[in-house]
Amino acid sequence: MTPSPYPVVRLKPKAQARTIRHGAPWVYDNELVTDRRTKNLQPGTIALLEDAERKPLAVVAVNSNSRIMARVLDRDVQAAIDGNWLRDRLARALALRERLFEAPFYRLVHAEADGLPGVVIDRFGDVAVIQPNAAWAEGLLDELCAAVVEVTGVKTVLKNATGRARALEGLDEENAVLHGRAPDGPVPVPMNGATYMADLTGGQKTGLFYDQRPNHAFAARLAQGARVLDVFSHVGGFSLVCLAQGAQSAVAVDGSQAALDLAAEGATQTGVAERFETRRGDAFEVLTEMGKAGEKFDVVICDPPAFAPNKKALEAGLRAYERVARLAAPLVAEGGFLGLCSCSHAADLSKFRGASVRGIGRGGRTSQLIHTGFAGADHPLHPQLAESGYLKSLFFRLV
Amino acid sequence: MTPSPYPVVRLKPKAQARTIRHGAPWVYDNELVTDRRTKNLQPGTIALLEDAERKPLAVVAVNSNSRIMARVLDRDVQAAIDGNWLRDRLARALALRERLFEAPFYRLVHAEADGLPGVVIDRFGDVAVIQPNAAWAEGLLDELCAAVVEVTGVKTVLKNATGRARALEGLDEENAVLHGRAPDGPVPVPMNGATYMADLTGGQKTGLFYDQRPNHAFAARLAQGARVLDVFSHVGGFSLVCLAQGAQSAVAVDGSQAALDLAAEGATQTGVAERFETRRGDAFEVLTEMGKAGEKFDVVICDPPAFAPNKKALEAGLRAYERVARLAAPLVAEGGFLGLCSCSHAADLSKFRGASVRGIGRGGRTSQLIHTGFAGADHPLHPQLAESGYLKSLFFRLV
Repeated sequence: MTPSPYPVVRLKPKAQARTIRHGAPWVYDNELVTDRRTKNLQPGTIALLEDAERKPLAVVAVNSNSRIMARVLDRDVQAAIDGNWLRDRLARALALRERLFEAPFYRLVHAEADGLPGVVIDRFGDVAVIQPNAAWAEGLLDELCAAVVEVTGVKTVLKNATGRARALEGLDEENAVLHGRAPDGPVPVPMNGATYMADLTGGQKTGLFYDQRPNHAFAARLAQGARVLDVFSHVGGFSLVCLAQGAQSAVAVDGSQAALDLAAEGATQTGVAERFETRRGDAFEVLTEMGKAGEKFDVVICDPPAFAPNKKALEAGLRAYERVARLAAPLVAEGGFLGLCSCSHAADLSKFRGASVRGIGRGGRTSQLIHTGFAGADHPLHPQLAESGYLKSLFFRLV
Repeated sequence: MTPSPYPVVRLKPKAQARTIRHGAPWVYDNELVTDRRTKNLQPGTIALLEDAERKPLAVVAVNSNSRIMARVLDRDVQAAIDGNWLRDRLARALALRERLFEAPFYRLVHAEADGLPGVVIDRFGDVAVIQPNAAWAEGLLDELCAAVVEVTGVKTVLKNATGRARALEGLDEENAVLHGRAPDGPVPVPMNGATYMADLTGGQKTGLFYDQRPNHAFAARLAQGARVLDVFSHVGGFSLVCLAQGAQSAVAVDGSQAALDLAAEGATQTGVAERFETRRGDAFEVLTEMGKAGEKFDVVICDPPAFAPNKKALEAGLRAYERVARLAAPLVAEGGFLGLCSCSHAADLSKFRGASVRGIGRGGRTSQLIHTGFAGADHPLHPQLAESGYLKSLFFRLV
């Protein structure tokens, strides 16, 4: 065995080396010997993790600014984290997506679960958008960009630095064009038979969320001939697919005019513009007004932003989810459907479902839960972080 | 308000009338005043449930032989539980399935969630199979059968009395033809592009399980060109759909020759018989032998019977699930997929996932969790019994 070229960091005597051997992806700051040498390692330094008996465990990325002080890159302690290594990880990630999808529009890399801790890469045809939300990836960004181009053949690589996690890692928030040139305008994205418009340079996060794809598809099964209300619509995720699959009409409600403009452009591209309507406004206010006006829809879907992004926000967040359900339920026609979504890490499935069921009850309706969906298969979960599945989509039928 | 024609049963002073008003479907024996009059009610008696202050709450079905002593039939305290009422419930259930499926093959009634406590009805085209697993439904069986014929137009109605729940309700285990005549042989069932053979008179439960339909469909997306191993195959649930969607080959393993014969007949009907193979044997033994022989498959799916049907069996059940995962993981080719299913009530998602992940690790493999699926939308959940979702299907990719 050749000696590792990487500096060594070491587990405290009581820390469980077993958990790393069994595949745990993270080492917290209280599990690591944090002598001055370790503290002085530059954020993102690649290091060799040893157990308390100096047996090597894994190659890790260290960031002493973060509570997650070491992230496992490879349990092969001889691994060299270089272009070859990155290409291998990307090729493995690409193989899954190519099996799942006919067209190159998907989340290509979903961080830990794809063996690239903290790294998120979305692909929009010839364009890849990298979110290097961990310091090690920021340090290897040139190599990562080159590897993405080589493995996927994309013509443009953008850096999106707006991720919440970056602050925890002490990283900047600067977007950039890493390779090729930025698209001139929004990029059309085919999904479930609809065409969405993704603004990859100015939009929210990476301009379009792929995570709801299977839940969009489920909603569309309910929507034949239906009047659809898509609340917190962003670029029209649920409404466009429902229209593409035969909905009679759809109304998209969002606070952002930019998002609604993209939704309208998507409706035009999908060929359903004459059945599509947008309404800008605060979702709670719009739901309240529609309730007062006695409006009814056959399918109502509410996909709000994360009301409970962390534990501190949990109680308030659950009340907000309950309020959404309470306001939306009366708008559903008899025998119609209500889709309620949460992308809150802190609100687990059981809590979110409880809040939703309470809200529906307080909205005066009786329900059946017909579907529980999560993020699509291009958003795999690390088996030891499976509790971290953030996206929940519940579909109820109201009687 | 006209006086109720039904005898009255009453909540104890401390029992929560609120929970019934909020939609709780059950009243346990310790919540009900069980005077001699109540105890003497025939199992299945329809009664009016009152709170301790004698305010009517709901029309219920009473069975003093069961721990679930009253099941809510209708929160409308004026409801008459008769043919009209049954037809209304069935029509509502049918409307959901007709929206979801193009062909009349589905679970038509899923008990509490469809407003018919304890009643399960599966539909196979012109044949309906009723499982009246609660005493009230057994008492109204003629009316229920007539209503099913009227609402759905089926030509045959069978009674399947093999459900585990029937013993708890003090019911017999006698199967019967309630209407029309029994099919001459196995019935072809189209699902996800494959044709399955359902033995409605001699098979396990109702001869075919519809609950895995969306998980079958997910597996098929992974199976293009793949070598598939379908363990605990029953009538070929996963293998036939994978072959129909382009798998190179599939091997079905089951302990029952009758199930494998139906699977083979299904393969013939699907037009994939030349790519299909069956292997009768104990699944654990077959997995062990295949492991020793170094056999590899691109997609391996294990859908065992309930190893943890109740809390007492939980620990042993979880060990059995772990063992399945440990034996199956080595058979998956690099980059291939492992589907692990549980239909155990007692093993919740988190526990089953934990056992599966441990087993994969002990089988020497690293994984990504790419999909978590539940029973299909024709198996709705009562919102207050949503924890009761028994079926879990996890798909892992192994690297």
